[in-house]
Amino acid sequence: MKVPSAAISRLVTYLRILEELEQEGIMRTSSEQLGELAQVTAFQVRKDLSYFGSYGTRGVGYTVPVLKRELRHILGLNRRWGLAIVGMGRLGSALADYPGFGESFELRGFFDVDPAKVGRPVRGGVIEPVEALPQRVPGRIEIALLTVPREAAQEAADLLVAAGIKGILNFAPAVLEVPKEVAVENVDFLAGLARLSFAILNPKWREEMMG
Amino acid sequence: MKVPSAAISRLVTYLRILEELEQEGIMRTSSEQLGELAQVTAFQVRKDLSYFGSYGTRGVGYTVPVLKRELRHILGLNRRWGLAIVGMGRLGSALADYPGFGESFELRGFFDVDPAKVGRPVRGGVIEPVEALPQRVPGRIEIALLTVPREAAQEAADLLVAAGIKGILNFAPAVLEVPKEVAVENVDFLAGLARLSFAILNPKWREEMMG
Repeated sequence: MKVPSAAISRLVTYLRILEELEQEGIMRTSSEQLGELAQVTAFQVRKDLSYFGSYGTRGVGYTVPVLKRELRHILGLNRRWGLAIVGMGRLGSALADYPGFGESFELRGFFDVDPAKVGRPVRGGVIEPVEALPQRVPGRIEIALLTVPREAAQEAADLLVAAGIKGILNFAPAVLEVPKEVAVENVDFLAGLARLSFAILNPKWREEMMG
Repeated sequence: MKVPSAAISRLVTYLRILEELEQEGIMRTSSEQLGELAQVTAFQVRKDLSYFGSYGTRGVGYTVPVLKRELRHILGLNRRWGLAIVGMGRLGSALADYPGFGESFELRGFFDVDPAKVGRPVRGGVIEPVEALPQRVPGRIEIALLTVPREAAQEAADLLVAAGIKGILNFAPAVLEVPKEVAVENVDFLAGLARLSFAILNPKWREEMMG
């Protein structure tokens, strides 16, 4: 099975829609409804789900809580991941205060290179020096939110890799080089702006994308 | 031409790499080098570029500043886009102070629903009420950075659409419904965390993705 990367992004969207439907007390849905809310075709919804198994009943559709549970399982959100924030500047501090991580993700560490920041209390802990990463990461922290400036990103990533991190959510506008055992996702609003620029200038392309 | 959405994201990555090469004084590159730095195959690089024309010379490769200029043109970054920030909370304020938008993007407006925030000076302007959007957007602001809480996101998007916005960079973890004339890109770190969770649990899938 060669699952396209975009399919994983859509699964996350479907999950979010299912959570909203459930909150509204809606217990049944269909590939048509999910597609409309996710702005893709019903065929796309069925194809994305088909990579992982057989869901729903023909002519009946999906049971919202069941499909939600299945998607959480596929995405690995039925477990708890330990997170660290590396780089306690403005963005890192805002993330430390963010209340919406949900039950799948738990902040377990806060790190910075700046001695003036080390020791400062934050919600849920205290800022530690990056030198403490090799002691803190193993068995406790799987994912790092990397919120350092662009020019410090690769060095911080190297430290995280050496400490045994499994995944990096990279907020810096830099292309990180890491061993293939380490997963990287970029949260990069400048790249988002560039994609938006292309999308605005190419409305026909957008229409094709919508199916 | 049906250009995959992921190809556009990769073009942005190639552009970033070309900018870094140029800064290092490197004037020639190849699909092999670009691929290695972007962590895709050389074939992928050539394929992504082939959607838009014929670039480089066989056996010689690409001239860095030329390919950079071509990519900027393809992505629409050779023009100046007017931006507004809608939602001047913590994230919106951080973005207002962000120094790295570059020459393609210019902050031209700051908006909030909160009367207590309206009138407050920010770098490059003053916070205005969202009611001013219909006067401020036309002919001046093409793209909105939407940094309101999740539950306010759709209503704010509706206001922006009514004011004539062309694109929305959505930072809220919500699936926005907008007319097809309006482009939306999501900067959604929670979705990034979910994709990371999947990627960590499926290392074989990651290897396949790398080509």
